[in-house]
Amino acid sequence: MDSLKKKILSEGTAIGSEIVKVDNFLNHQIDVLFLEELGKAFHERFKDISPDKILTVEASGIAMACETAKNFDGIPVVFAKKAAPNTLVEGYYCAPAKSFTKGIVSTLFASKTFLNEGEKILIIDDFMASGEAALALGELCRQAGAEVLGIGIAIEKAFQGGAEKLREKGFRVESLAVIKKIRNGTIEFE
Amino acid sequence: MDSLKKKILSEGTAIGSEIVKVDNFLNHQIDVLFLEELGKAFHERFKDISPDKILTVEASGIAMACETAKNFDGIPVVFAKKAAPNTLVEGYYCAPAKSFTKGIVSTLFASKTFLNEGEKILIIDDFMASGEAALALGELCRQAGAEVLGIGIAIEKAFQGGAEKLREKGFRVESLAVIKKIRNGTIEFE
Repeated sequence: MDSLKKKILSEGTAIGSEIVKVDNFLNHQIDVLFLEELGKAFHERFKDISPDKILTVEASGIAMACETAKNFDGIPVVFAKKAAPNTLVEGYYCAPAKSFTKGIVSTLFASKTFLNEGEKILIIDDFMASGEAALALGELCRQAGAEVLGIGIAIEKAFQGGAEKLREKGFRVESLAVIKKIRNGTIEFE
Repeated sequence: MDSLKKKILSEGTAIGSEIVKVDNFLNHQIDVLFLEELGKAFHERFKDISPDKILTVEASGIAMACETAKNFDGIPVVFAKKAAPNTLVEGYYCAPAKSFTKGIVSTLFASKTFLNEGEKILIIDDFMASGEAALALGELCRQAGAEVLGIGIAIEKAFQGGAEKLREKGFRVESLAVIKKIRNGTIEFE
């Protein structure tokens, strides 16, 4: 997606050789009109499938997942939580995921009410580094007996191997922008 | 907003005398088309003001804030974070907020890059209980020298006093649905 690559280059920042910061339009401040474009782009990549639901994880993935869902006739978005609030009383699935940018292991939770056996799921997330979050979301689906039709990622850092690992496990991964390398503060796309 | 009240009654759950659970369409699973309606309703309430930005807090407020921003010509949404990620290197404002449903005190963070002196801010959030989150968001704006034009809340639990407290401090609070009382699992609106 050329407009995303341009936006990463013009508004993003490379930190060291591993981190790309897009706080300006995606991860802290959100460009809401650009998010609509991302939603359309995900639909374009996955227009051959008919998911029942979109699954993402709080927080940065949520708004983008909602924009994507609108292009699939307004199917529900479920976002996994990183802590179990006291309102989550009806039982839940959980799976561990290490956050690359926060350096901690979170547990992702999803209520058993919102992921069900036989449901077809499209996973959407903002970043893919080592693939931990997507793997954990896939694990929540596995526990529920739901089927993951695909994983849509806005920005893939290919050098961290997440997408490759997920494809080896049989997942279909589609990334809107794939970063091959970050060198001396310069971002190189595939 | 009658459609929100109806949705709370038909899809929400009252727990005890203090908690209203709307995980079905707002806090865990999201009804994306209904969220568009919420965005329009917030704009209707605040159409007399011209904010530069919308400020919310992760996670449940984000998608709703984005829908609201679209009705204000696509102004940016900034969401405060509950932890400072290692990508937040440029300095930030922070303020403590006690989460009613999680029972813990979080610190809310916002980068100094995205809240600036003189900016006019509309705060949007999903729930108001004792007003802690909104107060903390207001405090972030105060630290930045930004002006809070209003606070828009989807579901206010009036019996927990948050809106009253904020109005006493001079904030304009507009809530789309105001719950007067929860009694024996029954939700009563004002």
